[in-house]
Amino acid sequence: MTGFGSPCGACKFLRRKCVKGCVFSPYFCHEQGAAHFAAIHKVFGASNASKLLMHLPISDRCEAAVTMSYEAQARLQDPIYGCVAHIFSLQQQVSRFYIIIHLNTNNFFA
Amino acid sequence: MTGFGSPCGACKFLRRKCVKGCVFSPYFCHEQGAAHFAAIHKVFGASNASKLLMHLPISDRCEAAVTMSYEAQARLQDPIYGCVAHIFSLQQQVSRFYIIIHLNTNNFFA
Repeated sequence: MTGFGSPCGACKFLRRKCVKGCVFSPYFCHEQGAAHFAAIHKVFGASNASKLLMHLPISDRCEAAVTMSYEAQARLQDPIYGCVAHIFSLQQQVSRFYIIIHLNTNNFFA
Repeated sequence: MTGFGSPCGACKFLRRKCVKGCVFSPYFCHEQGAAHFAAIHKVFGASNASKLLMHLPISDRCEAAVTMSYEAQARLQDPIYGCVAHIFSLQQQVSRFYIIIHLNTNNFFA
């Protein structure tokens, strides 16, 4: 339950009563939270997301909600690769930079 | 349905009959497939994974199954960050390499 009796974004999306102690409410506000939760719901499912948060210490839940939201958005934008596309892209960049550094080092000692 | 009438790894895990045309069977073999599917089931849910594959052209489904399996394994190993931890790590490596290249370029032209 967020302030002023409004349901959190997750409960708003799920059209259910947002009870005190709702596991989603600290991380999905009434306004933008529903859109973020919609992606999580479509990719992970509300039940899986809830279980994952419930099994974490409260201090870690915010980061987990953010990273799940990131993964879910990425999977909706790119259903084949999801955020693994970002990993591939970064790995390629690391390889390119590694080659540049390696070549420069060789030139320096040549 | 995989060869010799064995259920695919997903149907083996879900303890259901593996019918001809099962969406999971080409990507989850009877032997190792069940373990891979277990992670996908826990993180994404069998229904969400099935829907995602069904909405893709057949030519893209193998890559999607592999990347979902990768994401699911990462989330089980690191429930807070999942594969986003790999993204953070690679981003840091790119930044470090960028600084090295930038410093070397400045030294070269100094």
